[in-house]
Amino acid sequence: MATIDWKARAERVSQRLERLAGITDEPGRLTRTLLSPAMAEATQLVDRWMQEAGLQTSTDFIGNLVGRTPDRGRAPIDHAVGAERRTPNSKRRTLLIGSHLDTVRDAGRFDGALGVVLGIEIADISRSGFDLPFALMIAGFSDEEGVLFQTAYLGSRAFCGLLCPEDLDVSNQQGSLRQLLIGAQPRRAVVPQIGAKAEPEFRLPPGTVNRDQFIGYFEIHIEQGPILADRSLPIGVVTAIAGQSRFRFNWTGKAAHAGTTPVALRKDALLGAGRFALRTEDACRRFPGLVATVGELNISPNVSNVVPGRVIHSLDVRHQEDSVRAAAIAWLCQEADQIAAERQLGLERLLVQETPSVFCDPDFITRLAAATKSVTGDSFQLPSGAGHDAVILSQLCPAGMLFVRCRDGLSHHPDEFVHVDDMEIALRTAVRFIESFGSTPKGD
Amino acid sequence: MATIDWKARAERVSQRLERLAGITDEPGRLTRTLLSPAMAEATQLVDRWMQEAGLQTSTDFIGNLVGRTPDRGRAPIDHAVGAERRTPNSKRRTLLIGSHLDTVRDAGRFDGALGVVLGIEIADISRSGFDLPFALMIAGFSDEEGVLFQTAYLGSRAFCGLLCPEDLDVSNQQGSLRQLLIGAQPRRAVVPQIGAKAEPEFRLPPGTVNRDQFIGYFEIHIEQGPILADRSLPIGVVTAIAGQSRFRFNWTGKAAHAGTTPVALRKDALLGAGRFALRTEDACRRFPGLVATVGELNISPNVSNVVPGRVIHSLDVRHQEDSVRAAAIAWLCQEADQIAAERQLGLERLLVQETPSVFCDPDFITRLAAATKSVTGDSFQLPSGAGHDAVILSQLCPAGMLFVRCRDGLSHHPDEFVHVDDMEIALRTAVRFIESFGSTPKGD
Repeated sequence: MATIDWKARAERVSQRLERLAGITDEPGRLTRTLLSPAMAEATQLVDRWMQEAGLQTSTDFIGNLVGRTPDRGRAPIDHAVGAERRTPNSKRRTLLIGSHLDTVRDAGRFDGALGVVLGIEIADISRSGFDLPFALMIAGFSDEEGVLFQTAYLGSRAFCGLLCPEDLDVSNQQGSLRQLLIGAQPRRAVVPQIGAKAEPEFRLPPGTVNRDQFIGYFEIHIEQGPILADRSLPIGVVTAIAGQSRFRFNWTGKAAHAGTTPVALRKDALLGAGRFALRTEDACRRFPGLVATVGELNISPNVSNVVPGRVIHSLDVRHQEDSVRAAAIAWLCQEADQIAAERQLGLERLLVQETPSVFCDPDFITRLAAATKSVTGDSFQLPSGAGHDAVILSQLCPAGMLFVRCRDGLSHHPDEFVHVDDMEIALRTAVRFIESFGSTPKGD
Repeated sequence: MATIDWKARAERVSQRLERLAGITDEPGRLTRTLLSPAMAEATQLVDRWMQEAGLQTSTDFIGNLVGRTPDRGRAPIDHAVGAERRTPNSKRRTLLIGSHLDTVRDAGRFDGALGVVLGIEIADISRSGFDLPFALMIAGFSDEEGVLFQTAYLGSRAFCGLLCPEDLDVSNQQGSLRQLLIGAQPRRAVVPQIGAKAEPEFRLPPGTVNRDQFIGYFEIHIEQGPILADRSLPIGVVTAIAGQSRFRFNWTGKAAHAGTTPVALRKDALLGAGRFALRTEDACRRFPGLVATVGELNISPNVSNVVPGRVIHSLDVRHQEDSVRAAAIAWLCQEADQIAAERQLGLERLLVQETPSVFCDPDFITRLAAATKSVTGDSFQLPSGAGHDAVILSQLCPAGMLFVRCRDGLSHHPDEFVHVDDMEIALRTAVRFIESFGSTPKGD
């Protein structure tokens, strides 16, 4: 096996991330959204890096970029068809490594891009370092954050063939996703409709992914939380991606003059909501592993000399086990009802969103844990409280994730930071993990 | 003593309040602000009612309207000087009865106007019902709510000669109080300045009020709270107007991802603020008579999936005894510091405003209590948590207040309501109170 200069490779990853951070739709801060000019530019740059790593690249109708190791013994083939190139299809068994290239607004440089750029480095190492009994495909998904339409995973859902026509109806002030996709397609994908008023129709291309082809999906991602930093660990193996329930609570009391209304005659909606917010903390202690948050809260009339008559707030509850999340929600709702009854407040609850938890593949977890232990001498497993493309890819094939330490747990922020030493450890671990599937050292 | 048709008089008061409620600066809701067109129209109407009650009327530079019973044996004199009429001055001992004619935005019809219209009715009754050994002056102050400049008591402060030139510097988007006053004055009050750029100067007129003249100030006002309604009492005697402290609290925690940050690693500013808000309730129980309120609260970043990093809220504390208010504030600050320390939150406090309490005149309280008892068979005393013109007038002369029951404690709202029967009881009690100063029945 050829000697690998891990340090130099980690440095290159770091420099590439810095380069990508300069490609933005908003001057002065990092923002890249689905099919935007900055996304096109970033995709083009990553495409070049992929090609330099010997990968055969292509983009699909929603802007996902993939690069695939060429089939053994065959020269790289250019799949270009007109302006578009199609996902190189092959019956060869493939391990998919990826993450996303889009960002939130005013983002950090590591969320998403870290996993794609590390993936390219893994593919490059695989060329000279070891022979694999399967192909690698590196994916840079075009939309995970869902900034444009308050959706999530549009890129990986499209990749997996999980988008349906109704999904294209989501819209913002600029128009619908359908219109955005029509604008981005080469002419042949757009079918003009008969009649002057009819808009051109966009036909979702058939899924290009061959399900049986994939051994699994592997994603490296910044933790976006403080757990690894708190334990002074560079990396951790993800066990599951937590399920999430999001509620809207509406407490109704009675607005009253702050100077003239004795406390015994008040119905202060803020005190009810405040008491409940403290209960979320109790719930997290009562149900280990739970996170519950009141993050958005607006009071009415919101005037210093008026007792709050109404409070509307969010409740976000997550746990890696759906049954625990359900039990915690039941407990919280019971507490809320009791607070409302004691304080004679009205209370309405609306379930806004619910997503079940996704478990990482046990075999992947075992391999990643072993790889982590062999590289760092230690192994730590943790659930992910945030969603990732792996949620979608797990519907296609076994999925596993490796988290990299996030300074101060700070993410979705320009100060988001991953140390280059941690990138090196993640790279070593990822290569060890991939080797575990049965590589043979080069030249043997 | 001539027979008084109390019911008919209360009905007239009620009808006049309804009429005044139709005079507004904002179509569809009741809003009358200092020197506005609606204020001019309302003042003109009330002026006419005053004259019909035999009063000699005048307005001053800030729009205060007063009407005075004519001196015994003298015919009413028209004090008009150009467009303005000056406060009729006299050395005769005078009891001042008043309240304000301005309103908050989207106001009820009773706050302020009730006391002015009842005052006119009292003056009218005094003509035929009984002879008083002193004059009555009915005042309709032009600004108590301070809507235009977020001030309070501009009308009564001007009346008492307590405005100073610096007070005229307050301003809003339309300009300063000084500019508003200049625009409202007849030409002779404005002194043109030499030089092209100099603005005309407004000279505050010398106080026209003769301090020694006033026996005292009596104000009837809607309670604006639920205490009388809760006790099924039509009226109550005000003991004091509570002192008030207003703070701004700024809690600093750390914004963090709601899905990825375990509760043990959070610094949730909302939980600190919520815990403190609940302490205000404890303070009200610990210090009887205290009211403490968190009425305005804004959290940041205020997003459902982010742990709140910052909360800024108001704290309003009132008590009729300044020493109790000070003790309660000390206790609350200690509790806040403890919460901040336990939760590792930053905490800054800013005292925004502080006004001491004002005690009503003991002799007035005794007389009002006796009058209340003789009319209703019962007597109840309560402090006022809200400020009133009596706060200012108490600097001029003894002051007393009578509160009238407020349906559901609701005020500063279009549904504010006083029953006509309660107006009748207030009118009877007020006349009995005034008689207590030594009236002789008419015709004796």
